[in-house]
Amino acid sequence: MKRIFLRVAYDGTDFVGWQIQNEGRTVEGELNKAINALTGETIEVIGASRTDSGVHAKGNVAVFDTESTVPADRFMYALNSLLPEDISVVESREVAPDFHPRHCSSIKTYEYRIFVSRINDPLKRRYAYRFPTELNVERMDEAAKYLIGEHDFKSFCCVRTQAETTVRKIYSADVFHDGDDIVIRVSGAGFLYNMVRIIAGSLMEVGSGKKDPVHIKEVLDGTDRTLAGPTAEPQGLTLFNIEFADEQ
Amino acid sequence: MKRIFLRVAYDGTDFVGWQIQNEGRTVEGELNKAINALTGETIEVIGASRTDSGVHAKGNVAVFDTESTVPADRFMYALNSLLPEDISVVESREVAPDFHPRHCSSIKTYEYRIFVSRINDPLKRRYAYRFPTELNVERMDEAAKYLIGEHDFKSFCCVRTQAETTVRKIYSADVFHDGDDIVIRVSGAGFLYNMVRIIAGSLMEVGSGKKDPVHIKEVLDGTDRTLAGPTAEPQGLTLFNIEFADEQ
Repeated sequence: MKRIFLRVAYDGTDFVGWQIQNEGRTVEGELNKAINALTGETIEVIGASRTDSGVHAKGNVAVFDTESTVPADRFMYALNSLLPEDISVVESREVAPDFHPRHCSSIKTYEYRIFVSRINDPLKRRYAYRFPTELNVERMDEAAKYLIGEHDFKSFCCVRTQAETTVRKIYSADVFHDGDDIVIRVSGAGFLYNMVRIIAGSLMEVGSGKKDPVHIKEVLDGTDRTLAGPTAEPQGLTLFNIEFADEQ
Repeated sequence: MKRIFLRVAYDGTDFVGWQIQNEGRTVEGELNKAINALTGETIEVIGASRTDSGVHAKGNVAVFDTESTVPADRFMYALNSLLPEDISVVESREVAPDFHPRHCSSIKTYEYRIFVSRINDPLKRRYAYRFPTELNVERMDEAAKYLIGEHDFKSFCCVRTQAETTVRKIYSADVFHDGDDIVIRVSGAGFLYNMVRIIAGSLMEVGSGKKDPVHIKEVLDGTDRTLAGPTAEPQGLTLFNIEFADEQ
């Protein structure tokens, strides 16, 4: 028996999310299907992050245990030949039998991508959010800096959360231009449900001039969801990477 | 009666191409439907370039005649509210009644986008072609320069062409890095059927080391389709822009 670690990229457009549900196509479901077809075993992967419907990933992580004789680093190629084209395994290797992607300490990095345009852009719409008027990136970046550190992020959390605590630690939060797009990049030790999308919605209120940068600090201090901006649409969000402090 | 000029962007993924066919969703068909819903007239647009299935556009052009009282520059907004999200009108204005987008002299610019990776990238696959091994961009750019000028492009043309002449004039041909991607950008007074995709397929043979840059000159001089490389897949190709010498 060995535990296999997979790093997984996917286009979230045509999934109802990571987690298996009663109806709809899921990333977890497609991975299980490919692994079971390859190994002949009945395997259910354990995912690091249960991304929502429409959210993309360049580097989500899943693990599973198998008796298969396929070498760990070959799982990537074998699974890619079985997976649909909107999912790809970008890395596979063996990890310690007790490695658990949700219980091990990690740094997750998310990117929220925005393009400013009065009209729809058919070639960007799947992977970025369209904001209709100018955004001031410097103001957004200034506001984002208030998020860094350990805070109670209750204001930036979906009210129906089941999390025991709403305290989280953010290592970095940057807003910058990437070509014609604007990117919000946030790294942290963990995120609450919808947290990055509520951060993005709140930073857009600052960028458009509706709020001042210091407003983000006031929202944090208020620990009240109604103070923050709207939950930004999912297609702008990509789980960029997960780094584990101790993967073996 | 006035003639309206539309500049149109679209994601070619879910279209069988520009031109109306017996079966399948077309860009031309969707434009006609939206214009007819808006004006109450029975209108068929005239397109500048009949892009193939899977080929994208940032700036294809169409014109139509209408008795509508909608101001020319407002057609953009009115049509965008009726069009599906994979088509967008990015400009609308009135042009002279005799302006014809295929008979007027123009410069068309196409981009072919490539990413180098041993494995599929779910977030790039719709808008770029994956090449599995290293490509030397300097060699590709050197080779592309042989295409500039007026030449018989018979070697770079689908054998089932109905064109009267295979002589075309290329103004510029460049290959460059764009982030992690490689872009082939070609501008010319007109292109034969599949010409840019055969150019892309041939330049990839040079980039991978299979052929020398001067091979492109030999292919041109040979005026024989079998000398050129394969027709590159459509999803990498975008009709970037069309400029008209005399639009009014």
